[in-house]
Parts: sequence; structure tokens; C-alpha cells
Amino acid sequence: MAERQTTEHFADRLLEAIEQKGSPVCVGLDPVYERLPDVFGGEAETPQQRVEAIGRFCREVLGVVAPIVPAVKLQIAYFERYRDRGLRLYFELVACARQLGLIVIGDVKRGDIASTAQAYADTHLLGTDAPDAITVNGYFGADGLEPFVRLCRAEGRGLFVLVRTSNASAAQIQDFSDGAGKKFYEHVAEQVAACGGGGLLGRRGYSCLGAVVAATYPDEARRLRQIMPQQIFLVPGYGAQGASAADCTAAFKPDGAGAVVNASRSIIFAHEKANRGGDWKRAVEDAAKAFADDIRNALP
Amino acid sequence: MAERQTTEHFADRLLEAIEQKGSPVCVGLDPVYERLPDVFGGEAETPQQRVEAIGRFCREVLGVVAPIVPAVKLQIAYFERYRDRGLRLYFELVACARQLGLIVIGDVKRGDIASTAQAYADTHLLGTDAPDAITVNGYFGADGLEPFVRLCRAEGRGLFVLVRTSNASAAQIQDFSDGAGKKFYEHVAEQVAACGGGGLLGRRGYSCLGAVVAATYPDEARRLRQIMPQQIFLVPGYGAQGASAADCTAAFKPDGAGAVVNASRSIIFAHEKANRGGDWKRAVEDAAKAFADDIRNALP
Repeated sequence: MAERQTTEHFADRLLEAIEQKGSPVCVGLDPVYERLPDVFGGEAETPQQRVEAIGRFCREVLGVVAPIVPAVKLQIAYFERYRDRGLRLYFELVACARQLGLIVIGDVKRGDIASTAQAYADTHLLGTDAPDAITVNGYFGADGLEPFVRLCRAEGRGLFVLVRTSNASAAQIQDFSDGAGKKFYEHVAEQVAACGGGGLLGRRGYSCLGAVVAATYPDEARRLRQIMPQQIFLVPGYGAQGASAADCTAAFKPDGAGAVVNASRSIIFAHEKANRGGDWKRAVEDAAKAFADDIRNALP
Repeated sequence: MAERQTTEHFADRLLEAIEQKGSPVCVGLDPVYERLPDVFGGEAETPQQRVEAIGRFCREVLGVVAPIVPAVKLQIAYFERYRDRGLRLYFELVACARQLGLIVIGDVKRGDIASTAQAYADTHLLGTDAPDAITVNGYFGADGLEPFVRLCRAEGRGLFVLVRTSNASAAQIQDFSDGAGKKFYEHVAEQVAACGGGGLLGRRGYSCLGAVVAATYPDEARRLRQIMPQQIFLVPGYGAQGASAADCTAAFKPDGAGAVVNASRSIIFAHEKANRGGDWKRAVEDAAKAFADDIRNALP
């Protein structure tokens, strides 16, 4: 497949890919050497050998899921774990996934003051082997986001700002309240909505500045859907983290658009629950299809 | 110098280094190829050549500042900018700085759910070429910090959680108020204080879980000093970002301890303000000494 025009708006490209594949889902690559199928593991003695095994596994997974899902998400921490070797593999896999026609999200959660954010933006959003979109941490506010946003606008890339995370402790920090009913994560959502409008909207009315909104808190997701009507939500929490397809629907608009649900470990490590003598690729394929069907069937 | 025992408590090691050098300061390495002294620049055509030039420059800077300051901070974004080559250099420089007897802070600002945070912790806090401490983003709450904290406790390493950042937009996010006078960053500070006590304290009563508190907001720093009596503050904002030594004193306790002030660009690019025909190393040395003196003289 030819290199896609990356100057086309990110949200339009993502929504088109979702329509083509028929389900708003994303498979996450969170590779852990010790959990790879037997055929990849067991004999790697050096970090280099482990990175190579992870690379072979991930390339095969990308080939299996490319016909089924519109998007993949690479969690950079599992690559950074192998330092320079791992980081090289990360960008190789991003390029590989884009060649397969997948929309690629880099789950990097970077965030800093503007001068430093510019360095991160150039690293993670520029070039044919950089992701179509990345996740970012909005703790620094608008001036920390600005270098990322400017690059997304120029290059047809996207951002997902952390708003409501999927973990158990999220409420401890993010539910801090103003005493009049507004929570801190809603305040962050308002900032994202305010920054993400105007010139950042694509043909379909969605912004290239999206939000991470966990499926594990559906009531919060419903409220955030109201605050951020023009944001695409990247929705973690399905599968290994416990949220159901019904929980995920809270992140979508009434027409069934506006979000993409991610599942990582429950898909790529599906062989662990299948027959040990079985075909690991078949297990991944079946899990990806079941995931795509489950989300599609829960939507209007 | 022999490899330091890394199982000694981080706060004790840092405070001892501060006493030895006589000033609570940290020089930040935020290298940008285009701003290197002429002797390093101009002819590099490839990314590999630029990384090599940055490496030579940073090693020389470390040699110049090692007798003057107790600590250095490496901003990973400026290394990550060169992807795998840059990341390799980052860890090489961490090892080099530790060999020189410097306390090394990795400014990585990572943060994620626990399983992913574990991968980041293993990458950035384990091994002789990993920093003595890193900065982290606390948006995920206690369970996201837990893998970092556990590793710090076992390995004598430290953390600095982002509480109040130095940039102009910080207030937009971090000043969200509960309506009764408490701001969001104070809420984060309370969580840091609660997580960082008990078994995490060293001989001198300080925790290995510290906080990033900007010098650009001294009133906020004074308030945070009250909320977090056992935290060491890493203080950005001096120099290029505009805060004075007097502003920085707000982050210290009445006895002049409990914080370390960072300056990056104003030190490592000191040659830009010096005579172009002059000695760049002398410019860095003079700037580092002036910085150390300025902070020392502002404290009781």
C-alpha cells in the first residue's frame, strides 16, 4: 500500500478507517517477552534476542489484525524497556503498521514545558515512521500542548490528552472537586474542548485534539461526552482491565461515532487462555474478531 | 571514583552531596545541536554526527561542573529527539556523570497505569547507568506511582513528582480550586506527602519521594513547603525561565535545606552571552560558579 497522505486531517482518516473496517476498535501492542507464545520464547538469552523475538511477534500480530481493525496502539514503555534497541523497534513497527494501512497511535503520554514539548513533538509526530497520533499528558496546560497541536495541524496528525484514566487510583487525583459539582477531570476536559475547536476541526466536525476517557468509569464518560462533543475519545479499560462493551458505549455519541475502544493484553496474549497446543495466531485472530464484533454489536 | 552504593537512601545521598559541594544546585543538560559552541557544531551533516557532537559537548560540561555542583539533571526529550542513538547517549551520560560522583536526576516525567509504570521504573531506575532519581507525572494517582516507589525503596533511588510546574499555563490546570481555598496542586501535594512518609524516610528525615515545585511561583512554593515538610523539592525556573535566587528560597526550609535548584540553558549555553572568541568551557564554569554562589548567598 502506498504511503498515505499525512496532511489529510487525522480525525477524518481515523473515522474513515473505522467505517472501512466496520468497528471502532484498536488493538494495543504491550509486548512482554515472558508472555510471548512458546514459538518466540524460551531461548532468548540476551536483551538483543528478546527484542528480536518481540519484533517477530509484533510483526505477525500486525499482519493478523490489519484486516480486522482500523487502528493499533503501541505502548512505548514496553519498547523503551529495552532502551535504544527497543526504541528502534518501536519506530520500525510504527512504520510497518502504517504500511499495512493501519492508523497508528503511539501511547507515549509525554508532556512538559513548551521548549521540551517541542522536542517530544518532533520526535513522536514527524516522519513516515512516526505515529498518526500520540497520547499526551495535559498537566502543563495550553502552552505545553501547543507545540504538539501546531505539528498535528500542519502534518495531519492527532493527539489524545489524558482526561480520565482507567486505573483504580484515578479518582484520588482526578475527582478533586470545586465544591459546586465540577471535578478536576471535567475541568481538564473543558480545556481540551476549548483548545481543540476552530481550525483544528476536520470535515466531519471532529478535532485532531482528542481525549483519553476510560471505559471503566461509564458515568464519567457520559458526562465527558457532553463537555467534549468535538473530541474523539480513545477508550482504554476494555478486556484485561474489566470494562464491558456496554460500559464502552458511554464514550460514543448517540449515532455510534466519536470514539475508538482499545484492548491490548486480552488480544495479543489470547493464546494464554487458548489450548497450549493450539495455533497462537488463530487465538489472536479470534480474539480480535470477537472484540470488534462485541463493540460493534453494543453500538446503535 | 568507585561505584557508589546505590542502596543508601537517595535523600541522604543528595543532602550529603549538597553539603560537600556547598550549594543546593543542579545543572540541567538540555542539549540542542544548533546552540552548541562553534567547536562542536557547523559541520555535522547526519543525525549520528549531531549525536556525537552533543555527546562530546555534554561530557565536557560534566567534567567542568562536577567539582562545582552536587547534581545534574538530564532532560531526556533532547536525547529522545535522536531516537535510539539519542537514548543510548542519554544512558551513557548518566553513567559518566555518576562515575564523576554527581547525583543524577533523569527528567523523564513518565507516568501510566501500574503495569506500564513498572516497565518505565525498570527502564529508568535500575542499573548503574540509570539515574539516581527521576521526575514522574502523578496524574494516575497512588497505584501509578507504586512501582516507582517500590523500586526506589529497594534500590536507594528517588522520585520527584510534578506538583507545581514553572510554565505560564500552569495555573490554568493546576490552580483549579475546591471552592474552600484549596487548589488542585495542593491536593496533589497532600497525596505526595501521604505516600512519601513512613518507611520511605531516610536518616535525615527526608523522603525518597520528592516533588517538583517551580521557583516562578514563590507564594505557591511557600505554601507547598508547609504541606510537604518531608519532601525534597526539585526547583526549576531559575535563569532562562526568569526566577531569581530570592524567589527560589521559598522552596527551602528555614534552615536552608530541603530543596535543590536547577538551571539548564543559562549554564550550558553560557557561551552565547560571552565573547564569541572566548573560551566556552570557561563561560560554563563561570556561570555554574555564579549560580552556586547566587543560591548559597540567598539562603540563611
